[in-house]
Amino acid sequence: MALSTFSFPNHFVGAPASHQQKGTVISTQLLAGVDFQSHKHQNGLSKPRRKSCVCASLSEAGEYHAQRPPTPLLDTINYPIHMKNLSVKELKQLADELRSDVIFHVSKTGGHLGSSLGVVELTVALHYVFNTPKDKILWDVGHQSYPHKILTGRRDMMPTMRQTNGLSGFTKRSESEHDSFGTGHSSTSISAALGMAVGRDLKGRKNNVIAVIGDGAMTAGQAYEAMNNAGYLDSDMIVILNDNKQVSLPTATLDGPVPPVGALSSALSKLQSSRPLRELREVAKGMTKQIGGSMHELAAKVDEYARGMISGSGSTLFEELGLYYIGPVDGHNIDDLVAILKEVKSTKTTGPVLIHVVTEKGRGYPYAERAADKYHGVTKFDPATGKQFKSPAKTQSYTNYFAEALVAEAEVDKDIVAIHAAMGGGTGLNYFLRRFPTRCFDVGIAEQHAVTFAAGLACEGLKPFCAIYSSFLQRAYDQVIHDVDLQNLPVRFAMDRAGLVGADGPTHCGSFDVTYMACLPNMVVMAPSDEAELFHMVATAAAIDDRPSCFRYPRGNGIGVPLPPGNKGIPLEVGKGRLLIEGERVALLGYGAAVQSCLAAASLLEQHGLKVTVADARFCKPLDQALIRRLAKSHEVLITVEEGSIGGFGSHVAQFLALDGLLDGTVKWRPLVLPDRYIEHGSPADQLAEAGLTPSHVAATVFNILGQTREALKIMS
Amino acid sequence: MALSTFSFPNHFVGAPASHQQKGTVISTQLLAGVDFQSHKHQNGLSKPRRKSCVCASLSEAGEYHAQRPPTPLLDTINYPIHMKNLSVKELKQLADELRSDVIFHVSKTGGHLGSSLGVVELTVALHYVFNTPKDKILWDVGHQSYPHKILTGRRDMMPTMRQTNGLSGFTKRSESEHDSFGTGHSSTSISAALGMAVGRDLKGRKNNVIAVIGDGAMTAGQAYEAMNNAGYLDSDMIVILNDNKQVSLPTATLDGPVPPVGALSSALSKLQSSRPLRELREVAKGMTKQIGGSMHELAAKVDEYARGMISGSGSTLFEELGLYYIGPVDGHNIDDLVAILKEVKSTKTTGPVLIHVVTEKGRGYPYAERAADKYHGVTKFDPATGKQFKSPAKTQSYTNYFAEALVAEAEVDKDIVAIHAAMGGGTGLNYFLRRFPTRCFDVGIAEQHAVTFAAGLACEGLKPFCAIYSSFLQRAYDQVIHDVDLQNLPVRFAMDRAGLVGADGPTHCGSFDVTYMACLPNMVVMAPSDEAELFHMVATAAAIDDRPSCFRYPRGNGIGVPLPPGNKGIPLEVGKGRLLIEGERVALLGYGAAVQSCLAAASLLEQHGLKVTVADARFCKPLDQALIRRLAKSHEVLITVEEGSIGGFGSHVAQFLALDGLLDGTVKWRPLVLPDRYIEHGSPADQLAEAGLTPSHVAATVFNILGQTREALKIMS
Repeated sequence: MALSTFSFPNHFVGAPASHQQKGTVISTQLLAGVDFQSHKHQNGLSKPRRKSCVCASLSEAGEYHAQRPPTPLLDTINYPIHMKNLSVKELKQLADELRSDVIFHVSKTGGHLGSSLGVVELTVALHYVFNTPKDKILWDVGHQSYPHKILTGRRDMMPTMRQTNGLSGFTKRSESEHDSFGTGHSSTSISAALGMAVGRDLKGRKNNVIAVIGDGAMTAGQAYEAMNNAGYLDSDMIVILNDNKQVSLPTATLDGPVPPVGALSSALSKLQSSRPLRELREVAKGMTKQIGGSMHELAAKVDEYARGMISGSGSTLFEELGLYYIGPVDGHNIDDLVAILKEVKSTKTTGPVLIHVVTEKGRGYPYAERAADKYHGVTKFDPATGKQFKSPAKTQSYTNYFAEALVAEAEVDKDIVAIHAAMGGGTGLNYFLRRFPTRCFDVGIAEQHAVTFAAGLACEGLKPFCAIYSSFLQRAYDQVIHDVDLQNLPVRFAMDRAGLVGADGPTHCGSFDVTYMACLPNMVVMAPSDEAELFHMVATAAAIDDRPSCFRYPRGNGIGVPLPPGNKGIPLEVGKGRLLIEGERVALLGYGAAVQSCLAAASLLEQHGLKVTVADARFCKPLDQALIRRLAKSHEVLITVEEGSIGGFGSHVAQFLALDGLLDGTVKWRPLVLPDRYIEHGSPADQLAEAGLTPSHVAATVFNILGQTREALKIMS
Repeated sequence: MALSTFSFPNHFVGAPASHQQKGTVISTQLLAGVDFQSHKHQNGLSKPRRKSCVCASLSEAGEYHAQRPPTPLLDTINYPIHMKNLSVKELKQLADELRSDVIFHVSKTGGHLGSSLGVVELTVALHYVFNTPKDKILWDVGHQSYPHKILTGRRDMMPTMRQTNGLSGFTKRSESEHDSFGTGHSSTSISAALGMAVGRDLKGRKNNVIAVIGDGAMTAGQAYEAMNNAGYLDSDMIVILNDNKQVSLPTATLDGPVPPVGALSSALSKLQSSRPLRELREVAKGMTKQIGGSMHELAAKVDEYARGMISGSGSTLFEELGLYYIGPVDGHNIDDLVAILKEVKSTKTTGPVLIHVVTEKGRGYPYAERAADKYHGVTKFDPATGKQFKSPAKTQSYTNYFAEALVAEAEVDKDIVAIHAAMGGGTGLNYFLRRFPTRCFDVGIAEQHAVTFAAGLACEGLKPFCAIYSSFLQRAYDQVIHDVDLQNLPVRFAMDRAGLVGADGPTHCGSFDVTYMACLPNMVVMAPSDEAELFHMVATAAAIDDRPSCFRYPRGNGIGVPLPPGNKGIPLEVGKGRLLIEGERVALLGYGAAVQSCLAAASLLEQHGLKVTVADARFCKPLDQALIRRLAKSHEVLITVEEGSIGGFGSHVAQFLALDGLLDGTVKWRPLVLPDRYIEHGSPADQLAEAGLTPSHVAATVFNILGQTREALKIMS
């Protein structure tokens, strides 16, 4: 596969690549060959619905400009309290202005656009009917919370979105009392909301708790666990299912839109198709009677009728789980939303209610609506044309190199299969899917299942590669241990986004993977120091067929080293590192991307007259004992450097050194790891400095240990 | 609360306490005050069904004796191939003999009885119709696999069940080719089976894949993720839902049976009540027509009729997820089981089929049937009377002490609430439930939800204690990180079964918790060295209200130290350890239960003329830096000892020592941790020896480091 087939942007320039980020920013791919019209027609609801309801959107006039749009009504709204006296007509205007404002801000900063545009009306309706922070609104994943942030006192901060010291791209408790629960990873909102509802009842309070969760997030087991428990506990709470199914999961497709994965989506489809999405006032009225109001015969009949009309086939999956189902509701019709939310709010002791709201991702911004990824996450762009500004990059992302390397292996080994959890774009596996459509499995946002499913495939003699971000693999830790490592099954874990990740912040930071994987007895644990090494490690993992293995690689682009011949890796000797620079006194032993910091530090040190040794460990497990022994014996200082938490590579080296008696001699071992705190979102450079892992930090550490504090200060100044 | 209210047996004498073990062995509790009759009547199906079908069971004659029962037919069956020519009548006899054999064997060894008794007929039918190992049968959790083991060449090994070098209490790939997937933790089978089904198709093979999963296991999100994916991929596979709902989750109740938690169970109830459970041959026939056979009009009608009759309300939750639903089927009626399984087997390209089988846990052994825990897990017992042999213990289990300590805290702090995941008996929280019925939450087998639910409670100002076994908390690792630690919410994790666990083996071993918890920035990580310390740490966790905390404690009983006054702990100073013995040259720094090994090692060493220092770290995070600094500075050797993996306590001590410059001096640090391999099930003593963590090992290590190899050898001999 030629390199030129890849054209991802540099993830670090600002494009969000977050969970369930559903696709990283390859909308430019789609400009060629996608038939927007046929796609529109598939979704039969879309066009007629738009014409028949009143929810006018600025987008229909196509009036987006690079300058700040006029927002006279929004300008009067700093907090939800300022909305309370608006008429429904004014709410519609507010929604339009809010949408324009979101588009304007995100065009300047980049960020999650499509999902925020889809919930503009829902956000306005929720804040109109409910009263945060007393009432709790939980935005699942949180990337759709930009309109919520604007309406809750953070409009002025929008230009700082996802930047160092700026607004978080997700909800965050420390940022605002209106953010009732922090997010980033998907499918947590119903669990947390149920906890808040039960807590409210135990404390004797009276507020409302509302979880807003997408249909994609509904594919995760935790959402099901939470609904099952909510139905059992029967606490009053509201779950809003934000069903934008058209692109709910695989947004970053290469060849145009594909239907969402998971059988759940067809169940939701059936619900949608059984009734037009309008004029739900009657439904809401009937519903009130049934679930709380005075229950007389007529009300019961109305209710029966309404429910029969709605879901057609009787009970829904949600009803089986004990939730009272209402819907589907047009999520862009503020009249209906307000009416229904008011009814539900005014009804007491409802138990858990699920309101099925149908929205369109990217709604109201024609360029987003037309794009296959609905502008899920974008770089800065020109609002007038929708064109995203991509800084030219000489190299591609590690993600792309991984995909290319895996395709190369799969070309010669038909047993190689690939699994990802709703991240075909984010993991690069959409390239694999295009080349091997029957050998690539998107299981939905279901990391637990993904890993055990891979274990089952391995039992049958296949060679599964599970590509899951470092921070998301935390969701399947027991499956990695219990189903893979304990049974010594050769499942390969490709852990993307290892280490610091920039704008997405601590929820997405891959801090812990070395620690939590390297303690597992059978696991081979490795990390490439550059993109060529990544090719080799993919080949190594493919070759290791008698035990599990994993490799971590960072967000961002390769450093520009030559790729292996034919862009296909060559298996490395397992447990062998490599010496990069022979120096004296001090050895820097790097793991993964940190090797580059070691090399840069060595340059700095050389400028100050010290030539140090630099080695690339390649493997955390098994360790290259001979290399480490040699480094320890021939240097005064051995510094291990990694972009990971305590308990990982450095700890493995230390334990080996201690048991080998090498710490009893003269070598001084120093570990450089991520600090013992979470590092907030920001630019990669700022994050690395905050972590104390820049080349300057490494070099200064060397001089400090050698007692040359003046040189250390000089380097850091 | 007086100690005398507790009377758990010593978990180490043989009673299994495994996942989803659903209740540890407190059936003796139930002899007082449980009205078996009223309980029977609640389950309206039970009695009439037994009379009306032909599935006679020896239990009805009550003829259980201490001697080995006659099993003439079973004696001819070593492998499933030997069953193939039996008549259905003979299969019934075989099932009866198999049941007697299971009871006999388990009476001699202890083990999981109730669930194995419930699937005797199902096991016979499955092995009659399908052909393992070519066909794959996956027993979810695996504790119900005793009849399967007897029929697949392991009958002779049954007397070694759960013992050192004996049969595993779960399925295990390395034990038999008939065990297609290893188990122990719940809810993995559908994922693995789907992987095997997809793998089969990719490899062009033709075998059947069957997952057998309980309704309890169905409450876990992973099962839902897997069904959703199975419905989407539409591979041929069979899921058998083994619905024994009566005691599906909270078996080890204190006050008699309680209905299973989770809304799912009421959905299953509805399915059960809508049709009598017999004569399903017609159903099976109709089903065949619809899903694969020649589809003519009549068949379609029959099918429609049958399905309408069965599920009543139209589609089921399973159908919404894309599985073809068949049932409910009487799981003790071999005729029906064989007929349906044959039909499904002979039908090609069915996609995923779910057969809803209703069974009775403990079936056919009257003492088990009557017990509230259905003899889920038992010690050795007298088959004639059902009476379990419990060795008298002077102390209680750590589990009980934890429960007592938490009740004491909750008596004085009404904000304390408790959460567990279907382990009311195993965690001791049933005591908490009895005392505070509104403050205890059993969320089902749903660890992910449990943790985020607790986070939601903490947001509301409550003080949640999440009691989850160390190995099960692996299932909620991301929730611990993303929802609790990152938000710095004061959720308390009580991690029972930390370290080696004896008969349950490596799936249940709590090896990794120190490593995976102590790397989290905000977490307070502690471990009591004895039961009095456990009381204090429960009090400490209750007092820590500005960040998350956790404490790990072992399986088994306390060591007999005096408990704190009033059996209520006193909060410890966070990050302070304690010096237990002042000695010289060598310091043993223990963490958790390993402190006892250090003390015993010190005794051994003293007998050999060396008086060493022993300290109890209490905290892995924050470390007691002053204590460690003092030990390092005043001793030649510092040995950290823990029953946990690499990357945990020892690694944290080493990193502190290194950064403090203390490893550059004269002290030699040596870590003693669990070895880098899984330790098989067996007696705790055997396991500890295998791990190299006995007092003798610790003492010998000391002498070895000091160069006194002769003394070291003497101690180990």
